[in-house]
Amino acid sequence: MSDTKFIYFFGDGKAEGDASMKQVLGGKGANLAEMTNLGIPVPPGFTIATEVCDIFYKNNRKYPATFDAELRDTLNKLEKLMGKKLGDPKDPLLVSVRSGAAVSMPGMMDTILNLGLNDAAVEGLASITDNPRFAWDAYRRFIQMFSNVALGMDINVFEDILEEMREAKGVENDNELSADALKELVTLYKKAFRKNQNADFPQDPYAQLQAAIDAVFGSWNNPKAIKYRDINGIKNLLGTAVNVQSMVFGNFGDDSGTGVCFSRDPSTGENYFYGEYLMNAQGEDVVAGIRTPLKLSALAEQDETIYKQLVDIKERLENHYRDMQDMEFTIQQGNLFILQTRNGKRTGASAVKVAVDMAKEGLITKEEAMFRVDAAQLDQLFHPMIDPKVKQTLKPLAKGLNASPGAATGKIVFTADDAEMWVERGDTKVMLVRKETSPDDIGGMNVAQGILTSTGGMTSHAAVVARGMGRPCVAGCKDVVISGKTMKVDGKVFNEGDWITIDGSTGEVFAGQVETIAPEMSTELVDFLGWADEIRLSAERAGLSQKGFLVRTNADQPEDAKLARELGAEGIGLCRTEHMFFDEGKLEYFQQMIVAGTLEDRKKSLGKILDLQKADFKGIFKAMSGLPVTVRLLDPPLHEFVPQTEEDIKKIAKMAGITAEALTDKIASLHEHNPMLGHRGCRLGVTYPEIYDMQVEAIMTAAVEVEAEGDEVHPEIMIPLIGTWQELKILRENAEAVIADIFAKTGKKVDYKIGTMIEIPRAALTADEVAEHADFFSFGTNDLTQMTFGFSRDDAGAFLPAYIQQGILETDPTASLDQTGVGKLVAMAAQLGRGVKTDLKLGICGEHGGDPASIDFCYRTNLNYVSCSPFRVPIARHAAAQAVLNNK
Amino acid sequence: MSDTKFIYFFGDGKAEGDASMKQVLGGKGANLAEMTNLGIPVPPGFTIATEVCDIFYKNNRKYPATFDAELRDTLNKLEKLMGKKLGDPKDPLLVSVRSGAAVSMPGMMDTILNLGLNDAAVEGLASITDNPRFAWDAYRRFIQMFSNVALGMDINVFEDILEEMREAKGVENDNELSADALKELVTLYKKAFRKNQNADFPQDPYAQLQAAIDAVFGSWNNPKAIKYRDINGIKNLLGTAVNVQSMVFGNFGDDSGTGVCFSRDPSTGENYFYGEYLMNAQGEDVVAGIRTPLKLSALAEQDETIYKQLVDIKERLENHYRDMQDMEFTIQQGNLFILQTRNGKRTGASAVKVAVDMAKEGLITKEEAMFRVDAAQLDQLFHPMIDPKVKQTLKPLAKGLNASPGAATGKIVFTADDAEMWVERGDTKVMLVRKETSPDDIGGMNVAQGILTSTGGMTSHAAVVARGMGRPCVAGCKDVVISGKTMKVDGKVFNEGDWITIDGSTGEVFAGQVETIAPEMSTELVDFLGWADEIRLSAERAGLSQKGFLVRTNADQPEDAKLARELGAEGIGLCRTEHMFFDEGKLEYFQQMIVAGTLEDRKKSLGKILDLQKADFKGIFKAMSGLPVTVRLLDPPLHEFVPQTEEDIKKIAKMAGITAEALTDKIASLHEHNPMLGHRGCRLGVTYPEIYDMQVEAIMTAAVEVEAEGDEVHPEIMIPLIGTWQELKILRENAEAVIADIFAKTGKKVDYKIGTMIEIPRAALTADEVAEHADFFSFGTNDLTQMTFGFSRDDAGAFLPAYIQQGILETDPTASLDQTGVGKLVAMAAQLGRGVKTDLKLGICGEHGGDPASIDFCYRTNLNYVSCSPFRVPIARHAAAQAVLNNK
Repeated sequence: MSDTKFIYFFGDGKAEGDASMKQVLGGKGANLAEMTNLGIPVPPGFTIATEVCDIFYKNNRKYPATFDAELRDTLNKLEKLMGKKLGDPKDPLLVSVRSGAAVSMPGMMDTILNLGLNDAAVEGLASITDNPRFAWDAYRRFIQMFSNVALGMDINVFEDILEEMREAKGVENDNELSADALKELVTLYKKAFRKNQNADFPQDPYAQLQAAIDAVFGSWNNPKAIKYRDINGIKNLLGTAVNVQSMVFGNFGDDSGTGVCFSRDPSTGENYFYGEYLMNAQGEDVVAGIRTPLKLSALAEQDETIYKQLVDIKERLENHYRDMQDMEFTIQQGNLFILQTRNGKRTGASAVKVAVDMAKEGLITKEEAMFRVDAAQLDQLFHPMIDPKVKQTLKPLAKGLNASPGAATGKIVFTADDAEMWVERGDTKVMLVRKETSPDDIGGMNVAQGILTSTGGMTSHAAVVARGMGRPCVAGCKDVVISGKTMKVDGKVFNEGDWITIDGSTGEVFAGQVETIAPEMSTELVDFLGWADEIRLSAERAGLSQKGFLVRTNADQPEDAKLARELGAEGIGLCRTEHMFFDEGKLEYFQQMIVAGTLEDRKKSLGKILDLQKADFKGIFKAMSGLPVTVRLLDPPLHEFVPQTEEDIKKIAKMAGITAEALTDKIASLHEHNPMLGHRGCRLGVTYPEIYDMQVEAIMTAAVEVEAEGDEVHPEIMIPLIGTWQELKILRENAEAVIADIFAKTGKKVDYKIGTMIEIPRAALTADEVAEHADFFSFGTNDLTQMTFGFSRDDAGAFLPAYIQQGILETDPTASLDQTGVGKLVAMAAQLGRGVKTDLKLGICGEHGGDPASIDFCYRTNLNYVSCSPFRVPIARHAAAQAVLNNK
Repeated sequence: MSDTKFIYFFGDGKAEGDASMKQVLGGKGANLAEMTNLGIPVPPGFTIATEVCDIFYKNNRKYPATFDAELRDTLNKLEKLMGKKLGDPKDPLLVSVRSGAAVSMPGMMDTILNLGLNDAAVEGLASITDNPRFAWDAYRRFIQMFSNVALGMDINVFEDILEEMREAKGVENDNELSADALKELVTLYKKAFRKNQNADFPQDPYAQLQAAIDAVFGSWNNPKAIKYRDINGIKNLLGTAVNVQSMVFGNFGDDSGTGVCFSRDPSTGENYFYGEYLMNAQGEDVVAGIRTPLKLSALAEQDETIYKQLVDIKERLENHYRDMQDMEFTIQQGNLFILQTRNGKRTGASAVKVAVDMAKEGLITKEEAMFRVDAAQLDQLFHPMIDPKVKQTLKPLAKGLNASPGAATGKIVFTADDAEMWVERGDTKVMLVRKETSPDDIGGMNVAQGILTSTGGMTSHAAVVARGMGRPCVAGCKDVVISGKTMKVDGKVFNEGDWITIDGSTGEVFAGQVETIAPEMSTELVDFLGWADEIRLSAERAGLSQKGFLVRTNADQPEDAKLARELGAEGIGLCRTEHMFFDEGKLEYFQQMIVAGTLEDRKKSLGKILDLQKADFKGIFKAMSGLPVTVRLLDPPLHEFVPQTEEDIKKIAKMAGITAEALTDKIASLHEHNPMLGHRGCRLGVTYPEIYDMQVEAIMTAAVEVEAEGDEVHPEIMIPLIGTWQELKILRENAEAVIADIFAKTGKKVDYKIGTMIEIPRAALTADEVAEHADFFSFGTNDLTQMTFGFSRDDAGAFLPAYIQQGILETDPTASLDQTGVGKLVAMAAQLGRGVKTDLKLGICGEHGGDPASIDFCYRTNLNYVSCSPFRVPIARHAAAQAVLNNK
């Protein structure tokens, strides 16, 4: 016998595996074993370990030496338990062969049902079930599935024969075909098989099983599976397991059926038993969305016993797994079988509600609740919705199923490929409209704003995948008639490129582009984020006098600041001032400043901007009353501000009293080869001190005035792009002189800090020197990442995709902080800075401040706060709590 | 009395200071004290310490409280020793007041002579010397100098009066004016003074002294002094000292005189007593270059006693200081006085010869000899000269003094300001042509290719400064007649912008632009560099199996490689391959490659370049037979290679079989926002592996063929712009596959290495990971500096000058490695890399590889070698030896 165990048996109330063995058995196999051990009625079978898949690929698609003997032994054990044999001409054992990796990849890999049938066994099945129609239907389905999945034959070969048969027999649905017709179909299928494969359909059931196992392992690396893993960032798996399980049939007649159910509502999280089923159907019929299934509540009326049994199992499973379960069941002639259970995929709203409810029910702790929701799910809750007021005035075009919440608007495309192509060429807002989606459409679904399908239910492919992606989706919208590249609804024709809007929370579809707004927060969400705050705010910070891990926002406008504060921001981590120069009425003066030949003239132009900037700052300080506000002084190079059009050049030249040629020359002289590495940030502060002086004056005068008006202000002046302590020293002294002046003039003082952005590698490397002159550091990880990697985000599009595809980079380092390289600089700067000033305030204001993995890093690196865009604030609050718990 | 001593007396054979106190007394003061202690005849006096200058500036131009009392006491002591009193109407003491910092700044600061004269004292001087002409001349000189230097009056006020007087008296030279005329001149001077200053010329000698001291301290921060310190990188000085010394006079008559002498020839280093003097003249007359002085050999005939005395003193001083001395002497009525001695400034040739001779004479050790020559001096020896063969065919326009060696060619400018302006606007090759230069001209001299003056001697300002700067200079070229912005020589008129060429080694001037070539090496230079090699090659390297510190070169062409090898290069540290694509016959194919839509087409175009590149590499390998050659694979972004003109676009489009529009679109698509941070280096290797494959094939096929032809090759393939180990792993594997193929095909193997440039901060930060896949690191400190600082050299011109001026940066970090920041990354990478591979080969190939301070850093950081441009190789060999000695 083998040294290594490759196959794990389950059945008769006990199993060789359990739920903890997902890496070995895959999710499905581990749960089948666990359920068997729990005494849940699961059809017996066995699971081939994921390691075999790994060996299969590493060993040129060959199996371990001992594998065949182990397979035969285990099959034998199954046959004994079932009292049937594979291919037995009298009473054949039929099995399903299914894939199942450690991470769920719905519909990504292949399944074969009814395996074990052949020309002799089908007769036995017919006779023992006394149901020839069922037996021949099972055989014809098996031939079709096996030929397609195991041997790669085009499925249309069979679909065409089936359609001809339906026509010949004058029926509309397959289930109206008689046993004889099905038998005839089998003959035609086998003939087609022989023509296509130059061989007879395989009659040896063990050979069928081997081929099916080959096919499942082979499907692990098919393009759609690879793409799915890519998109979902699934890595480091050995491969898929293979589950071989005795068949049960939901299509034995009207006392049989099959269904999918969730222990709570996967859309809303409401705690009621949610599901869909079809009587006299096989499992794939429900998921495929071909027939529209019934709600589970109907089952209670139809068969109370079965329903109660199912409710009982649901409760046992939910309590056992301590999470919402997604189950598949089959009723075979009045007997209930559970074919699968797993933690249910859910929308963000559902995830939050389930987590909060379960914590309140005492099923899980508040800390555990934090890990029951991920950032992408939380993010959904802050996705735009259609303004209810606007919506009142709109008449929906059509209504489908509310398959994935959130509103989306986009230009219609009719294929997933088109969606990808349009987005690639810059037409980023597309709406994917399909009859139904299939795993081949994953790429297009991922880039689309939303998905609209004309067929399929709440558990159809489109619905499940869209919810997972957080894409709004309206499914099964029957009023939509798609033909080629047009869509007809209610008599109106829509072409490719026309705008439509969907509301995935209600299922409504609207013509045209409709504006969307931010959603309200549910009470569960408020509770959830409140718990997150409790956790992160009570965290003891090693070596810091501050308790807790704070979340600020990046906001440049009073409205954004207000919104962020409502979303929980505890201050502003980055207020960029450059937009203030772009405002109407300021830009012209700033352009004059740039053009001016003398310091006097520059000061005159800046003087005109002063009061306008002061007003901006007052608005922000008021919105953030009592909280710190970090204001970054001017950062971009001057050439970003110069007039571009001939007309503007003439206008500004006239205002500045110079010729258009002189201005054109001046603009040309500002051109830079590498603007990112040019004359910007504090370099402008050094060469044009009057600009920073004006900004500091505007900030601090605003601060003084706002405090006089009764609000509390804590301005933090941030000097960007520092590379040397000398720059900071000079600019700090300049700023302090201006501030001293204001305090002297007004006779008032306000609390303030002066610090710097750490975004130049050299500043991080010499952070001990820089810290001597800084009250705080804010890590500008956007630029720091680009300079540490030596690439610019604007240009990296030419190679970053290849880098991620080839595994050079795991993720885009501009989205999630590169902890190895850039993180080393951040940690070094934090340590060097704190070495000089124990309580130096540290924060991050790059876009990484809203990324959970980066937030975890920031917590470990002992930063005081993270700062992110207003809509990311709740995600950051949650991720901060997770970080605290992860690092306890 | 004071706690702190501010004033140091010297006289009567003993002094309060000595030569070791340069920081306190300045160079001049320390040497006056030392000479006094040695019994050399030095006119007595005292030195006011540099600390007073520091206090003066820190304390709002006020002196320390105890200073005045100490000054009066010390003056009193001097008066007692001399038996004369300042301003005494019978026998007045006259003093000179001179500046003197710790570092020599010739002519940068102000001097006042004959101080102590007033209306009464001048009569006493006239009577006691029995020389009214001398007395009145001394007084009128004093009035002029004092008014100009201490009170800032325009010197032309006095020069005009003097000229009128000469005209009125019908004489040509000042020394033809009678005592009465001079007395009359004094009256006129005083009248002009009263008119200008609204006050009488100060008669209180102590007030005169105070004002003179003020003036010397004030001169420390005048613009020309600041600029001199800037240009010469003189920093961290407290200030200047002030030397107050009793006057001796070389203008007492024909038994008096004054001169400047060097213990060896400052131009050639030859060991003979070199100098110039003028009888009946004041010291400044020799230096100013107004009268052409006599050679010192003439003095031996004129006054053998004095000459012998001078020779004796010279020998004592040279033996005492163990270096070539630059001395000033005055003969007053047959008595010899030494006014100053210091280590003589010298040309590079002189520095090398003096150092080698002194070491051979046993005066200094070989190790000390290494520090007697600096990099700038050595560099001069490798400056271009006029090809002797071309020179035979040329007729010099004129001949002046060979004031500073080396040949230069440039466009004529007539003012220092013009020189700076022309260079700033991009006209970098200018020749500064002046009657004589003054300290105001420093800026223009520094940017000029060379300097030509029509007056002045070998010790004139132009000559001294040019030698210090290493600029070729022809001085005192009397045939050149300058008027306004034209120059007439031998009847020919030259205008601004016309080309001329000078040979500073011979004093010749040529019309037009003449080609220059590299010079031969003197035997002393060969000895000197041989000693340097002994020192650096025998250095034990901590933890390394390699002995010695090597010097390689950056060379892309066989000719450069040959030259560098002759200059001592021990291999190639950087062979860039991009120029090879630009060559005629290759560029078109490379452009086709860029344009090609398919891998097949790209490979076809690259195939056409393969043999051509192979031939390039063969030439280089042969030139470097037996030595390692590091070849960097393609680095610049593709858009640097695309056709630019409409004509070229049409041509390439036709060759590639596409339309000109398609090509134009392709070119536009290659545009980058920040090309430095774009799609270049190994990123091209990842996305277009076929380019690197072709290059590796060309390198290794060349290597195999060259070894087959009998030469030994050690190719080191360098992959640029690595930021992650993953890139290096993939590209190394690609390269190894190509190499394995070549070895298999040819049945031959050659030694090779594969490594990377460390030029991306992230690579340095993760050097332990990168080292796993690298046989060597070469620090590309050009890019590493730019990325670590976050600025691009191309754009930094807008702020770097301000940064250096404001002291934010001490030096341009692109010229001399920033050891604090960038150096930290280099040291970190070295340590991390060697932590993984003890004997990982480390080198530097940025331009810093030729900078002595950076070379010292590289040695301390335990690099195996530095690499620099061919002409810098000898400088690097020398600096490497200094580094070994510095860090013993």
